Amino acid sequence: MFKKFRPLYDRVLVERIENSDEKTAGGIIIPDAAKEKAQVGRVVAVGSGRVTPEGNTIACQVKEGDKVFFGKYAGTEAGDNLLVIREDEILGIIEN
Amino acid sequence: MFKKFRPLYDRVLVERIENSDEKTAGGIIIPDAAKEKAQVGRVVAVGSGRVTPEGNTIACQVKEGDKVFFGKYAGTEAGDNLLVIREDEILGIIEN
Amino acid sequence: MFKKFRPLYDRVLVERIENSDEKTAGGIIIPDAAKEKAQVGRVVAVGSGRVTPEGNTIACQVKEGDKVFFGKYAGTEAGDNLLVIREDEILGIIEN
Amino acid sequence: MFKKFRPLYDRVLVERIENSDEKTAGGIIIPDAAKEKAQVGRVVAVGSGRVTPEGNTIACQVKEGDKVFFGKYAGTEAGDNLLVIREDEILGIIEN
Amino acid sequence: MFKKFRPLYDRVLVERIENSDEKTAGGIIIPDAAKEKAQVGRVVAVGSGRVTPEGNTIACQVKEGDKVFFGKYAGTEAGDNLLVIREDEILGIIEN
Amino acid sequence: MFKKFRPLYDRVLVERIENSDEKTAGGIIIPDAAKEKAQVGRVVAVGSGRVTPEGNTIACQVKEGDKVFFGKYAGTEAGDNLLVIREDEILGIIEN
Amino acid sequence: MFKKFRPLYDRVLVERIENSDEKTAGGIIIPDAAKEKAQVGRVVAVGSGRVTPEGNTIACQVKEGDKVFFGKYAGTEAGDNLLVIREDEILGIIEN
Repeated sequence: MFKKFRPLYDRVLVERIENSDEKTAGGIIIPDAAKEKAQVGRVVAVGSGRVTPEGNTIACQVKEGDKVFFGKYAGTEAGDNLLVIREDEILGIIEN
Repeated sequence: MFKKFRPLYDRVLVERIENSDEKTAGGIIIPDAAKEKAQVGRVVAVGSGRVTPEGNTIACQVKEGDKVFFGKYAGTEAGDNLLVIREDEILGIIEN
Repeated sequence: MFKKFRPLYDRVLVERIENSDEKTAGGIIIPDAAKEKAQVGRVVAVGSGRVTPEGNTIACQVKEGDKVFFGKYAGTEAGDNLLVIREDEILGIIEN
Repeated sequence: MFKKFRPLYDRVLVERIENSDEKTAGGIIIPDAAKEKAQVGRVVAVGSGRVTPEGNTIACQVKEGDKVFFGKYAGTEAGDNLLVIREDEILGIIEN
Repeated sequence: MFKKFRPLYDRVLVERIENSDEKTAGGIIIPDAAKEKAQVGRVVAVGSGRVTPEGNTIACQVKEGDKVFFGKYAGTEAGDNLLVIREDEILGIIEN
Repeated sequence: MFKKFRPLYDRVLVERIENSDEKTAGGIIIPDAAKEKAQVGRVVAVGSGRVTPEGNTIACQVKEGDKVFFGKYAGTEAGDNLLVIREDEILGIIEN
Repeated sequence: MFKKFRPLYDRVLVERIENSDEKTAGGIIIPDAAKEKAQVGRVVAVGSGRVTPEGNTIACQVKEGDKVFFGKYAGTEAGDNLLVIREDEILGIIEN
């Protein structure tokens, strides 16, 4: 649906990779596990970068095809396992 | 009603495109679906851009006619399926 | 009462125009209509503009007589359908 | 009590003018009247102005004797109908 | 106990002056009196001032011996009616 | 799983070192122990550093192999006792 | 345990000095005593200082051995009466 999607500024379109080893059943909040779990996806499209207060553009560091790691609740759902997130919400790149 | 509407600064007037494939019935909050869903619209009018602390204007990157993607709860309702949103709330442009 | 009112900095005095087509009865919050509705008013007076961190004044873009559009809960009530709002809370100008 | 009070930085000492036409009885919160009501006072003393990050002082725009308009819950009570508020909380000046 | 106390940066050590005319009994919150009440104290020691992002120090404007006015819940209790507060929490100086 | 993980900007990948002396049983909140407890880990990978508003990169101060100390609820879980945290959430380096 | 601990940036390692004159029993919140109580400690180690947006380092003003005063709930517990706090959370230095 949004394959031809051009993210604005520092936003990135990511296709989520299903995480088969997710074992958490139920939804009880346990104090020691209060930290957000992360997820994995593939970068599909990258914005042109954020604009500084002076009007200069700073390009994103992730690029199309990068396998990235991000917080479970980061970004906005775009359907078909797609997600639009700010680059700053991406925790890092997984290199195989 | 607001066809001849001139948005201020970095605001954008968007006409929402009805999303026929919206299947969510009821309103129960499910932990794994806690992320906001996005919606699609057509840009009707664009502000002159935000003003930097130094007083310079940085033009918006979206333009009239762009098909844009934005968070479901972004912006302020302007009636007749119209919506005024900040350009920063627009996630990206859909190119067909 | 406040006709001879001089707003400070980036504030604007607006006279609300009654919105006869407002049909929402009751006050139940419906998830899909959670967005704030906007309202219309006429600019009565405009402040001299905001002062930058360097001490320069950046004039407002709205001017006396402009028909403006703003969020329903924006600003501070000043009696007699008058409202004092920051220019940044004005969504745009309606040109007839 | 605080007649000889020198406000610091961008603070202003205001003497409230009793608002005889305040008709709101009871305290029920009505959605359409959720906006804060403003009040009127007379400026008694003005601070030297805020200091910019670079260390320069930007003088206040209100002056002693100005009749000002401010949000009902703005500032800190100083007794005897006196109030200390930041200049930025003053909405504007009422000129008679 | 902390007479020989050197506050850091923009902090100030204040000795509270008991306010004998405080008449508020009970603790019921009344909408029209929702504003914080202020209190009076004597400056005992002053920090060297805040450091700007460029590394310059901007001296405090209050000085030892000043009778100052501050919000009732401002600062951190230091025992013996002493209080450490940021200079920005001081509303002004009372000159007799 | 994420051994070949390249953190973005000022993020750091940390492998948690089990803290055997953790004695807190139950989850009752006791006022005097309201402070967050810290934990220990080993730095596995470090981002290239944060980018300033002017577009310059400021390298991180921690390096691979550093034994670091961080707040118990800092960062995002990355599985296998791994954690991605911002360098600013690292409290310090433990030198043996 | 963390004697050889090197705090990062503007963080400081403090060893708490037991405050024998703490008389508050029970945990009832009394409106007039709502202010946080402070505590005393000895500086054990100091970070190299915060880094400005331009990349310069601004050294801390506290130094090893200083007896400092800080808010009761400031910082992160590091065991053995040790605490890691940001220098900005230190209220001042106690000179005997």
